[in-house]
Amino acid sequence: MADLRMTERAAQLAEQVLAGDLRLGARLIRDLDDQTALAERVLKALWPHTGLAFILGVTGNPGAGKSTVVDSLIAYYRKLGKRVGVVAIDPSSPFSGGAILGDRIRMQRHALDEGVFIRSLASRGHLGGLSRSTGEIVAVLDAMGFEIVIIETVGVGQGEVDVVALADTKVVVTVPGLGDEVQAIKAGILEIADVLVVNKADREGADRTVRDLLTMLELRHAEAPLGPDFPSSEVEIIRTVAVRGEGIGELATAIQRHQEKTANLAPIRRARRARRELRDALLDRCAQLVDRVLSENTQWVDQVQRREIDPYSVSDRLLQELLQSATSGNAPYPRSA
Amino acid sequence: MADLRMTERAAQLAEQVLAGDLRLGARLIRDLDDQTALAERVLKALWPHTGLAFILGVTGNPGAGKSTVVDSLIAYYRKLGKRVGVVAIDPSSPFSGGAILGDRIRMQRHALDEGVFIRSLASRGHLGGLSRSTGEIVAVLDAMGFEIVIIETVGVGQGEVDVVALADTKVVVTVPGLGDEVQAIKAGILEIADVLVVNKADREGADRTVRDLLTMLELRHAEAPLGPDFPSSEVEIIRTVAVRGEGIGELATAIQRHQEKTANLAPIRRARRARRELRDALLDRCAQLVDRVLSENTQWVDQVQRREIDPYSVSDRLLQELLQSATSGNAPYPRSA
Repeated sequence: MADLRMTERAAQLAEQVLAGDLRLGARLIRDLDDQTALAERVLKALWPHTGLAFILGVTGNPGAGKSTVVDSLIAYYRKLGKRVGVVAIDPSSPFSGGAILGDRIRMQRHALDEGVFIRSLASRGHLGGLSRSTGEIVAVLDAMGFEIVIIETVGVGQGEVDVVALADTKVVVTVPGLGDEVQAIKAGILEIADVLVVNKADREGADRTVRDLLTMLELRHAEAPLGPDFPSSEVEIIRTVAVRGEGIGELATAIQRHQEKTANLAPIRRARRARRELRDALLDRCAQLVDRVLSENTQWVDQVQRREIDPYSVSDRLLQELLQSATSGNAPYPRSA
Repeated sequence: MADLRMTERAAQLAEQVLAGDLRLGARLIRDLDDQTALAERVLKALWPHTGLAFILGVTGNPGAGKSTVVDSLIAYYRKLGKRVGVVAIDPSSPFSGGAILGDRIRMQRHALDEGVFIRSLASRGHLGGLSRSTGEIVAVLDAMGFEIVIIETVGVGQGEVDVVALADTKVVVTVPGLGDEVQAIKAGILEIADVLVVNKADREGADRTVRDLLTMLELRHAEAPLGPDFPSSEVEIIRTVAVRGEGIGELATAIQRHQEKTANLAPIRRARRARRELRDALLDRCAQLVDRVLSENTQWVDQVQRREIDPYSVSDRLLQELLQSATSGNAPYPRSA
């Protein structure tokens, strides 16, 4: 009965979110973070209404001015009358779970605009959690009818890069005059770029940065499984001074050109995202199961710590017991060693 | 029979690794990357001989000079006659799987020293893969008798920070004169610091950086579950100019002091690591199972993509089938929708 009421309540909430209730949308996203059962029901109900938004990934070096570029893009798209949702994944504390740059100060000028919806997400990437959380928030924004959903993330951690890798168009932002190590990071994320941005292009060294990027593009491997669906020779390099809005129109045009040129690949991109979403959901359930098993079987942790048994043998045994207990009417996880 | 031969072969290899065969150790680490069945057997055999090394985590901003600090620490510990293993986790391509800074040029002066063993690891962090890989390499180095194992990682991605968070002592390296966004990242990793290093301390702004760090320390929450086991007031801030070896003796002393002051917490740290190792191994098996299920059930991915069903409902169904098929003599995963 309680279950039925929850399903009804979820359907009701889903309808309100679909009708564009921003306050409810924001609350749903918060609840997803806490993984309430109700939030998942709502997401289930919203699912048929997703898959319509254009998903734009923006990543790049720390300090490259990604937020400013995103902010300028929002302003540009708003002038065209498009509604824009943003998921900003902040470098953040592994412990507080909170987004340090929470308020995204530079984006506050959109705070009163109902056509813009910005959510920060702490980077809590244990075991694909980051990917799952991002996917869920994108789904909510998508269902709420935002035509463009921007995922902004720092381009350093693997999890952070992966999250952007499945966007429809991937924009990588860099900046003149970074040191050696940072250049190496740039090389790592360069491989996913569909459009490259040299921001702060009024700075000294911008020409050299463009030349370096061109060289790197020539070296890029385009046949990577999750890689760019775009030959390197067609990747455009756009110069911007995002704080002044310079070059943003050109950037938006380059993004559109990428979409048009790769329109035939859109179904592949959607299939990849669906697979990722399903995989994230499955692994999330597995992680919950594993954590429960470990909490109830601390003696195994003790034995591993005392080096009496190795983690692989314990894993095999726990997994076996888990699978066997599922149909035998016992608790769905082993209780004793 | 083949299985028995493999177990024998694994025992033999394990003995050679334990006897200090560096070439075999290097090969084992390579094989772990490919997850060969033999490599896992060897790791099982090595397990009882692990848990002895002191694990030092070094992380910090890109460009802060972490590699140089690690290089100088190696030289310092070598003079004391200690053998040092290093796992360097590089920012790297999500696709090449290779470590961009592969050869760690600055560390090459140790190339002929049998008491130093450096391995680079690409940051491939899908679903805790980074954590698992690092843990396994640390275990091999530990079993090989390296008394100090240093994990060096960029302090930006969540996965990358998590890997260092379970070290015995966590050193966070920063540098004067970084921009705003990077400062925020620093705040994120500051919470795990047991010792703080201001490298390139001969640069302008070093005093200000030290003051900023002191302020941040005052704000730090020490009661975080995986957080520092050390009150903020006891975190030492060490100035170094690592390229010239300046301040490295002081850093080593601060590390030792942290160990002495927190000796009573060592069992807790070891228990946390054992739990992580067991969790990583379990989740790795789950991920393999999930990937197999998804490859054999592409119709589910199609249906999710067409929005005919949501990923959560599919997950529940696939997991259920998986658990039920385990004891019914069927293939251990569902084949049809």
